[in-house]
Amino acid sequence: MAGTVEDSGNTAPSSPAGLRGADLALRVLLFAVSLSGLVVLVTAKQTEMVPLVLTPPFRFGPVPAQFKDSPALIYLLVALCMTSLYSLLTAATSVKSMSSSASCAKGIFVLILLDVVYAGIMASATGTAGAVAWVGLKGNSHTRWNKICNIYGKFCRHIGSATCLGLIASIILVLLVVLNAYSLYRRSR
Amino acid sequence: MAGTVEDSGNTAPSSPAGLRGADLALRVLLFAVSLSGLVVLVTAKQTEMVPLVLTPPFRFGPVPAQFKDSPALIYLLVALCMTSLYSLLTAATSVKSMSSSASCAKGIFVLILLDVVYAGIMASATGTAGAVAWVGLKGNSHTRWNKICNIYGKFCRHIGSATCLGLIASIILVLLVVLNAYSLYRRSR
Repeated sequence: MAGTVEDSGNTAPSSPAGLRGADLALRVLLFAVSLSGLVVLVTAKQTEMVPLVLTPPFRFGPVPAQFKDSPALIYLLVALCMTSLYSLLTAATSVKSMSSSASCAKGIFVLILLDVVYAGIMASATGTAGAVAWVGLKGNSHTRWNKICNIYGKFCRHIGSATCLGLIASIILVLLVVLNAYSLYRRSR
Repeated sequence: MAGTVEDSGNTAPSSPAGLRGADLALRVLLFAVSLSGLVVLVTAKQTEMVPLVLTPPFRFGPVPAQFKDSPALIYLLVALCMTSLYSLLTAATSVKSMSSSASCAKGIFVLILLDVVYAGIMASATGTAGAVAWVGLKGNSHTRWNKICNIYGKFCRHIGSATCLGLIASIILVLLVVLNAYSLYRRSR
């Protein structure tokens, strides 16, 4: 292991442009993915004629399905909203760091700290929405939770897509942690 | 920023015993928490007399509730199982690293990589189980998913406790990522 770090004056070897470029690209992608997820989730609304009582004589009426009906989907919305804003702010920081010659080790450490917290929030929100989407799709005969996706197909496709986009956002955040940890590792050699 | 790293020969300043001790303590705690969660989840079983049909004349019969009935809880079980095993293995690695004089930067980077992946898995499993537990506790009138915790109280307490332990395990994994990132940061200064 080398006893010196070659970042005094010239930061290129310890934090090359490639790593900083990849960081910026991932943050822009994270913004695109989380914003798309947000739009797909907010537009998840469908009204169908369903029986208003479960016993004969059946009376039918229009019943809307929307993301506000489930706390799990509201949590996904909040997580996607926070991640969109966060990715925008950190992408701006990343651009600023690319334009300046020095990239601070402390800044990278703070980014890892924030990224891992957001990764945790986003992963849990994806799990939460995924669990509700799964019950909606398959139902659960043991608890008598009926499936709803056979009626609200479009609504379920929106929820499923938003959950997938949440999963992609979580993976991007994990990749950002690994990338910045690698950046610190290169500096520490 | 200093141009030299003081870890050639003596690793104490860049990776002090305190940091390595905290890493080991967190891994031991992670093992205890995830194993407890596993035990609490596996023992979640309750049989109650419930109406077998929802329309009169009601016929009652014994219906068991167990974690196997929900894919979300099976996912939590798998995640807790994986995390228990992982924490045990990495605690052993941590002990080995404490007994040897040198702690490798590459090793710390690999640990960050694995910890963040496990944090993501554990957080998503916690979210998944939490969503199902919430529906079980509160029900959802919009989708007509009835609450079950008014009948299966003991079962729900087990699921809630296992979910809380899953959340604690996720937080410990996030702390481990931050701790090891700090260790790399100290080396890179």
